[in-house]
Amino acid sequence: MIRVAICGGSGYTGAELIRILASHPEVQITAVTSEQSAGRSVADIYPHLFKFKDLIYEPLKKEALLDKADVFFLALPHGASQEVVAYFYNQQKKVIDLSADFRLRDPLVYEQWYKTPHKHREVLSNAVYGLPELYRDEIRSASLIANPGCYPTSAILGLIPALRHNLINTEAIVVDSKSGASGAGRKADIALACCEVNEGFRAYGVATHRHRPEIEQELTAICGSEVRISFTPHLLPIDRGILSTIYCPLLRELKTPEILNIYKDFYKNEPFVYVLDEGLLPDLKDVRGSNFCMISVTLDHRTNTLIVISVIDNLVKGASGQAVQNMNLMLGLKETMGLMHIGLFP
Amino acid sequence: MIRVAICGGSGYTGAELIRILASHPEVQITAVTSEQSAGRSVADIYPHLFKFKDLIYEPLKKEALLDKADVFFLALPHGASQEVVAYFYNQQKKVIDLSADFRLRDPLVYEQWYKTPHKHREVLSNAVYGLPELYRDEIRSASLIANPGCYPTSAILGLIPALRHNLINTEAIVVDSKSGASGAGRKADIALACCEVNEGFRAYGVATHRHRPEIEQELTAICGSEVRISFTPHLLPIDRGILSTIYCPLLRELKTPEILNIYKDFYKNEPFVYVLDEGLLPDLKDVRGSNFCMISVTLDHRTNTLIVISVIDNLVKGASGQAVQNMNLMLGLKETMGLMHIGLFP
Amino acid sequence: MIRVAICGGSGYTGAELIRILASHPEVQITAVTSEQSAGRSVADIYPHLFKFKDLIYEPLKKEALLDKADVFFLALPHGASQEVVAYFYNQQKKVIDLSADFRLRDPLVYEQWYKTPHKHREVLSNAVYGLPELYRDEIRSASLIANPGCYPTSAILGLIPALRHNLINTEAIVVDSKSGASGAGRKADIALACCEVNEGFRAYGVATHRHRPEIEQELTAICGSEVRISFTPHLLPIDRGILSTIYCPLLRELKTPEILNIYKDFYKNEPFVYVLDEGLLPDLKDVRGSNFCMISVTLDHRTNTLIVISVIDNLVKGASGQAVQNMNLMLGLKETMGLMHIGLFP
Amino acid sequence: MIRVAICGGSGYTGAELIRILASHPEVQITAVTSEQSAGRSVADIYPHLFKFKDLIYEPLKKEALLDKADVFFLALPHGASQEVVAYFYNQQKKVIDLSADFRLRDPLVYEQWYKTPHKHREVLSNAVYGLPELYRDEIRSASLIANPGCYPTSAILGLIPALRHNLINTEAIVVDSKSGASGAGRKADIALACCEVNEGFRAYGVATHRHRPEIEQELTAICGSEVRISFTPHLLPIDRGILSTIYCPLLRELKTPEILNIYKDFYKNEPFVYVLDEGLLPDLKDVRGSNFCMISVTLDHRTNTLIVISVIDNLVKGASGQAVQNMNLMLGLKETMGLMHIGLFP
Repeated sequence: MIRVAICGGSGYTGAELIRILASHPEVQITAVTSEQSAGRSVADIYPHLFKFKDLIYEPLKKEALLDKADVFFLALPHGASQEVVAYFYNQQKKVIDLSADFRLRDPLVYEQWYKTPHKHREVLSNAVYGLPELYRDEIRSASLIANPGCYPTSAILGLIPALRHNLINTEAIVVDSKSGASGAGRKADIALACCEVNEGFRAYGVATHRHRPEIEQELTAICGSEVRISFTPHLLPIDRGILSTIYCPLLRELKTPEILNIYKDFYKNEPFVYVLDEGLLPDLKDVRGSNFCMISVTLDHRTNTLIVISVIDNLVKGASGQAVQNMNLMLGLKETMGLMHIGLFP
Repeated sequence: MIRVAICGGSGYTGAELIRILASHPEVQITAVTSEQSAGRSVADIYPHLFKFKDLIYEPLKKEALLDKADVFFLALPHGASQEVVAYFYNQQKKVIDLSADFRLRDPLVYEQWYKTPHKHREVLSNAVYGLPELYRDEIRSASLIANPGCYPTSAILGLIPALRHNLINTEAIVVDSKSGASGAGRKADIALACCEVNEGFRAYGVATHRHRPEIEQELTAICGSEVRISFTPHLLPIDRGILSTIYCPLLRELKTPEILNIYKDFYKNEPFVYVLDEGLLPDLKDVRGSNFCMISVTLDHRTNTLIVISVIDNLVKGASGQAVQNMNLMLGLKETMGLMHIGLFP
Repeated sequence: MIRVAICGGSGYTGAELIRILASHPEVQITAVTSEQSAGRSVADIYPHLFKFKDLIYEPLKKEALLDKADVFFLALPHGASQEVVAYFYNQQKKVIDLSADFRLRDPLVYEQWYKTPHKHREVLSNAVYGLPELYRDEIRSASLIANPGCYPTSAILGLIPALRHNLINTEAIVVDSKSGASGAGRKADIALACCEVNEGFRAYGVATHRHRPEIEQELTAICGSEVRISFTPHLLPIDRGILSTIYCPLLRELKTPEILNIYKDFYKNEPFVYVLDEGLLPDLKDVRGSNFCMISVTLDHRTNTLIVISVIDNLVKGASGQAVQNMNLMLGLKETMGLMHIGLFP
Repeated sequence: MIRVAICGGSGYTGAELIRILASHPEVQITAVTSEQSAGRSVADIYPHLFKFKDLIYEPLKKEALLDKADVFFLALPHGASQEVVAYFYNQQKKVIDLSADFRLRDPLVYEQWYKTPHKHREVLSNAVYGLPELYRDEIRSASLIANPGCYPTSAILGLIPALRHNLINTEAIVVDSKSGASGAGRKADIALACCEVNEGFRAYGVATHRHRPEIEQELTAICGSEVRISFTPHLLPIDRGILSTIYCPLLRELKTPEILNIYKDFYKNEPFVYVLDEGLLPDLKDVRGSNFCMISVTLDHRTNTLIVISVIDNLVKGASGQAVQNMNLMLGLKETMGLMHIGLFP
């Protein structure tokens, strides 16, 4: 059994890692850390994980953890992750970082958006952006994975085929995303209280959300020329899921079968991306609890726009599930191991 | 007291008209019609309207209704409304039609989108589009009001000031709208069942929704040249509210105080439109149950885009409240009479 | 205009008082206090109250407030309310206290359940329990009202007629209550976060909730002999509303028309209590935002049990609406003034 | 691989069977039937089951199905199930019936509550009530399982230990149950529309629900003397889950450790029932999507009442999961096979 540690395991992504890894046949969780919950069991904090009565949160002491695991998942706050990643990475461990600290390749862009310097540029240069649909081979041989953000996963998966085929005016892409409340994490915050979120809906971080440079970085990498997008995240009064509606002005006229073929063909061997048939639209309820991404493509001939809609579960394909997918690749396991659960509907 | 009849009063917009008119000091509801619920009381169908035990739904017989009321609200299905509107209009009654039958000025556009011919073109030519913020004077002297659709109300109110000032590239506007489930009406439909909608989120009618030509008609009227928009409606797992996120590529660079001034100035005398201060974003929960529209404007300097967000309650400002606002104007009453209720939060 | 101050006005009951009083024709809010939000406007904290831009929260300084108002609503935490109530009461002001500090007539019971001594027993002896359906005459001449708790309002209103008629075994009443999340107030608390409450349901305070002695006190007062109940509150994943299912073992066999008559007769002149016809059951959605209480009575002949179900909006009839009803009575105004709004459905 | 057919597979319990069986290592679904959806694929009706593109609903033709499977799950409407069960049973197939047709041992009780005669009394006498915690041995050797109702599962599991120890006055048990909307099935019904259920809460079937005789039958069997309960089901505005609050007047005084021991001891070897430690209360969100039942016991010394709270997922332990648990037992497989998934939280 491969020994796995989860640093920062008391948030929703940490709990979701435990849930997913609990049914993974090749893995054993040997340590979870949490400063706030140190000394308490996982079962105590999360009653749905009541089987984990003997898995006790411990404070994050790097040296003490080192020999406990072969693979380290880090679900720490942005900024705090840098140093821990660097330590385990330098100790030749496999590291999968769910924070944003190693996602932006350019440390100056990181500093601009996260308002803190990047102190481990050498390590950063060795990180692989963990979107298997883009970087599967690099992930296989990587030691450090920067696990993608939830919004970027939904946006990038929706855009790769169209960008690869040079179909879009890359200066006018609009990504309008809607996320369930778990995306904000587990915290005592009035703005996230049930009465404030339930039956409501609002945008936030308009024009300023930190996932934008991450999306732009990857779209630019795909295109080879700079892509700038309009990106607006919104808060849905539900637990899980991200739906992104992506407006792409087309460079030439297309017919539906053509664009559908491009998308279906691109994703035909991907185990977790499913392109819907003509006329169908995805509901984020259909991927709840699963690692799947569903995508629809629709042409608006009146404005010559391609409208892509993608849905994921932000805690699974948008975080912990994708992290396990990356782990499988890094370890040479079957990529889908422990990840083929069907979404919970209704 | 002015006598008011509601034709098609057993749906959500009908019930909402009754709720609003119940506290209107100058109006008395004298008749409500419903084929399906004929013979049953309003209280029977809608327990929250339990005070209306003696208001009995009757079948819609135009001649029998004629003398019962001075003002007729019609909340009938599209297509079915045409003839009833024409009848009451020709009998010199005040008519406020909440269907789409008299919203599109060009009968050919109507036929194209609603798949049925328009048989009352003469009457159509006398209808006034009931958005007071655009057509207040015409409404005052009108006998027939085409009450705007819910999505169009949210989209148009968000765009008027920017269009009037020629700030936007009118060929690339994106309107991404999200509506609560009451927008689909009260019907036995598996797609609207609680288990199908709750905790879910999905787009529908992508590139094909009938509110698009209505929005485009009014934006074109404002601009004087043809406007085509990308418009995508989505279904929120909540009861009420529409939030529209509107992306407007700017023709020139703007500063925030400038755009804020333009919006605040334009709406400064409007009783129901409220422009938020810099940095604030509206939540549709803040207008629930009220006739208010809240609007925020944000500049995305990176892509030189104006992002407007507007929220309304789809059943109030998006339907029945706006209908009462129009009635007040038509009757020479105070425009805000019976409509100043504060939204229900939380 | 009567001048009204709200002490502790930044929670949900405070905001609800502002919402209700905003449409009250005889009242003007002259001061609101909040330590946490001092210096900020009501509009700033609660965007749905955007009209109250000039109403600024101030710290609670009793002497400074004294001349600003004739009526004082206190929505302060339990314990903190005692002294403020006593001050304004002794200064001959009308006081309506929404805390529990003056609800329990016996100061020893208060101390037992609220773990703090009662320091104003003299004042306590002059407080009137503000349930108009029980104490209307006393309220009219009172200077200090202890506004009932939300659960007690729903439970007591469901039981008065049956108790008055000596129909029930008073040693075996079960009150199973379910409340929306606003009952817990507005606070930063992980247990109330959207992701923790949404799509969930749980009991809390089983056998230990502080509203039990309050309910028992009033039931005992009605019966003249001690009543002890089983009471279990639950948290519903919604904003507003309390539904109480009350199981009453009957002392003799009854027929439905008989029990229905008893209830309908008892409440026939009550403006805010509505007894449903045979076969109908109340939904808390039907009273959302209103001051109404709906009650159904059902006989279970198999076990000879009366099952009463009552619904209220916990923030209105269960708190701020009832407080305004009490104010109307104290001031000799029409009891229903400003309170006849219909519930918001859907 | 064991071949399994699902008759009546287009409802929520059918879809849930497919979801669960999809990850069961020893089973293969060879046929699903649905009259309404005949000819369409499972993926077409349920997008979350998109992998089942080639599993096509067929009309229920018993003879055609006979050779296709070894085990038949029947999720047919009450009444319609009788004949199909009898057919497959008489053909020596293993049958698990999720309808109520074979749950009530006394055909007269069945006829009284289901208003239709029981035409297969011989078969009925061979049915085993499929609650493994009560009838594990009988299930192992049974050919026909009457899979318990959702409410009965939650109520009975909460009561067995106390009844076995003769702790309760069996004439005064109150079961107050609350269920998510999926319990009502998948149908086009205005009463189940999102806008009618969302943000609402109501009781239904007070004193008349058909699950009461089923609960009473099993409680009576445990006690050996007739048990009559008060039972009230309620509709929660959520997808999944049943929480039952059970009030049990005690025959003697108990201390918490004593009652806790009795429950913990009784369930110590049960793989799917988990008794919470003192002071903890279950949330139905903690078992969402899982086959677990969580139970808390609390003593109310003031009224000498035991308050048991149990939670299950109505579609899993309350229906399809329990059906698979029964299948495992009937086939001699490990009882927990394919059923150990952790609940989805949040």
